[in-house]
Amino acid sequence: MSAPTPNKAAATPEDILVLLQALCLPLDAEQVALAEAAGRVLREPVCAPEDQPPFDRSSVDGFAVRQDDRSFQFRIVGQIRAGDWRPRTLRPGEAMRIGTGAALPGDNLRVVMKEDARVETDRLTVLRQDSERNIRFRGEDARAGQVLVGAGVMLSPGALALLASVGCARPRVTRRPRVLHLATGNEIVAPDRIPERGQIRDSNSALVRAFLGQWGIIPEQRRVAEDAERIKSEIQNPQSQNENLDLLLVSGGASVGDHDFTRRRLEESGFTVLISKTTARPGKPLILAQRGNTLAFGLPGNPLAHFVCLNLYVRAALEGFAGQATRTAFTPGVLAADLPAGGNPRETFWPARWSLQDGSATLTPLRWSSSGDLTSLSAANALIRVRAGPEQLPCGKRVEFVPLERS
Amino acid sequence: MSAPTPNKAAATPEDILVLLQALCLPLDAEQVALAEAAGRVLREPVCAPEDQPPFDRSSVDGFAVRQDDRSFQFRIVGQIRAGDWRPRTLRPGEAMRIGTGAALPGDNLRVVMKEDARVETDRLTVLRQDSERNIRFRGEDARAGQVLVGAGVMLSPGALALLASVGCARPRVTRRPRVLHLATGNEIVAPDRIPERGQIRDSNSALVRAFLGQWGIIPEQRRVAEDAERIKSEIQNPQSQNENLDLLLVSGGASVGDHDFTRRRLEESGFTVLISKTTARPGKPLILAQRGNTLAFGLPGNPLAHFVCLNLYVRAALEGFAGQATRTAFTPGVLAADLPAGGNPRETFWPARWSLQDGSATLTPLRWSSSGDLTSLSAANALIRVRAGPEQLPCGKRVEFVPLERS
Repeated sequence: MSAPTPNKAAATPEDILVLLQALCLPLDAEQVALAEAAGRVLREPVCAPEDQPPFDRSSVDGFAVRQDDRSFQFRIVGQIRAGDWRPRTLRPGEAMRIGTGAALPGDNLRVVMKEDARVETDRLTVLRQDSERNIRFRGEDARAGQVLVGAGVMLSPGALALLASVGCARPRVTRRPRVLHLATGNEIVAPDRIPERGQIRDSNSALVRAFLGQWGIIPEQRRVAEDAERIKSEIQNPQSQNENLDLLLVSGGASVGDHDFTRRRLEESGFTVLISKTTARPGKPLILAQRGNTLAFGLPGNPLAHFVCLNLYVRAALEGFAGQATRTAFTPGVLAADLPAGGNPRETFWPARWSLQDGSATLTPLRWSSSGDLTSLSAANALIRVRAGPEQLPCGKRVEFVPLERS
Repeated sequence: MSAPTPNKAAATPEDILVLLQALCLPLDAEQVALAEAAGRVLREPVCAPEDQPPFDRSSVDGFAVRQDDRSFQFRIVGQIRAGDWRPRTLRPGEAMRIGTGAALPGDNLRVVMKEDARVETDRLTVLRQDSERNIRFRGEDARAGQVLVGAGVMLSPGALALLASVGCARPRVTRRPRVLHLATGNEIVAPDRIPERGQIRDSNSALVRAFLGQWGIIPEQRRVAEDAERIKSEIQNPQSQNENLDLLLVSGGASVGDHDFTRRRLEESGFTVLISKTTARPGKPLILAQRGNTLAFGLPGNPLAHFVCLNLYVRAALEGFAGQATRTAFTPGVLAADLPAGGNPRETFWPARWSLQDGSATLTPLRWSSSGDLTSLSAANALIRVRAGPEQLPCGKRVEFVPLERS
């Protein structure tokens, strides 16, 4: 067994994030139906094609009368329901029954609310004079041509409703990345199998699938033993889509007792290894490699390292591919308990549970007994960044963290 | 047109939330594959079937030796890779090569890290004595029988990984609710159509679909004109699944100039109307009704009221149906700008954008010119609760809000 020479010095987390920002450019855009666009990133601004609302509309159920006509008795001369278009010049003393959302019959009108009036056949008596006109005026919300949603915005339910309202029924959004995930290791078996002695169940495939699912991505996934030829063939020819693969994730690859196993398979398959370890823990033996338009991560197989690398680095890659204008960043919060990581010579990412407590971001560091400890990860929704060095981190101390929800 | 008599006085938001908590009991549970379980709510505790890890494992690549053997020279007598099971009693001076994650060959051992050793054929020289044993011990993470994930927990990626690791390949989770959504109104047309004069495009269908999509729910959706018979027939017989419908959402139903249109259709179809208006704005004419196990909401058609009622009340119903242990609640935050809603005689829910600023929840109220204004809703990720009364809400004031992300 020869001691492998890493082709790069250990990279800091910043190095990796800066590199990913440069490497992961927005993928192609495609037009999809609104029902398919939720959570996707808009790639061109959407403008109002006409004034919003496009005509003066009643905001209440009531009676349209002339704005300047403050009398108390009117004659009802017609009815306008939402969806109708009935232009008519109202004379003094005339009123038209009108529904919420219906188009006003003309200009310089106001609407008397139903609750403020009494009706007998075609006679309307106003019981209370209202200072409001009860009209949503044409162009009040937006003017024709105005940009309503900018490029780079992730489409929320509200944004999709806005797009629908202006007739953008097939928005141009970033296509989803094509992802292949290989879970490697001679010791892993499928979760529904009874492990033999020395074996454990594969948890990383479930983690990767659910993590990517938050982005609407369904990866191709395969579980492979650590057979160099088999893995090379998977990497080189993942069925038909190899040419167009955007992201390759390889979990594990250290069980032969050589943490450079994955690195060598990637190199043999034409990838250029850009990073082969990081200065931070966990996830120190992280690999980042590239071949054409395909980016590859070699993720250390232990669950905690996996969790951290997915949520920091793979997430940054996905944000880049999506063309999102806003990127995940560390933000301050306060510890609700002592964090035992302080004072380590290595920068550390620590799983935690964050919540708003009385308006402040508050972090409870999760106990983890070992890098394989999944028990605490099931509750984690944040990663705390602990700088290298002597600083201690008692309860109440301010720290930096990243929330794990996509936003 | 007869003035309808609401069968209940206006309900406060608390009234409605309390009622929903009583009405919306957890739906049946079902077993699904891990790949289908993301975001679902677990309905029975998952325990460790065996100790975790199930055997002592090396946490590094290196050499297993006796714990009490602190000598510097060893003879390598074998190799254990992850996945192997090779019990062997090591004698003093003997070492076995071992991979990360591999099972230790016996008890009372320690692992010398590869980095701390030099190897020549079968001779091992220890370069640095390490105080760590570099072993993940059997049962270190969890003991057999220990509860790992409790009932009522929404399954995160980390929780799914934990379930996979203990062989829970088909967790028991709450089934998804069956939802029918009717967008009513004579004035609405599909987003891909050019509205005629007096018409507008339907934005509520896109909003409802994307909102429910966050819960993994794909509703049946239909757009229907305000024809009493047609709507009754949809409500009474929504294709085949009527008997099993969990949730019926009816948008709009006010364009005939009578805001009780939906209420009457529900009553004619056998629903008991429990609430027909609320004290809060927007969304005052909200309807809540029940027939057997089906809950119905009549949602005021204007976009802002729709947005508020979905995110407050329909969300509460979905949390109840899901059997989630944690429910959405209002939480404090600080205004980053003046909020013009203060001092209104009616309690108000105001759309806003919240973010963490220097560790504190900070809220920027969104401008809305009218209840039909979708422009600001596209950026909203929070609702601010403004109590009725004279209080003014300048920038810097503390308020209550609810974040709209599901968590």
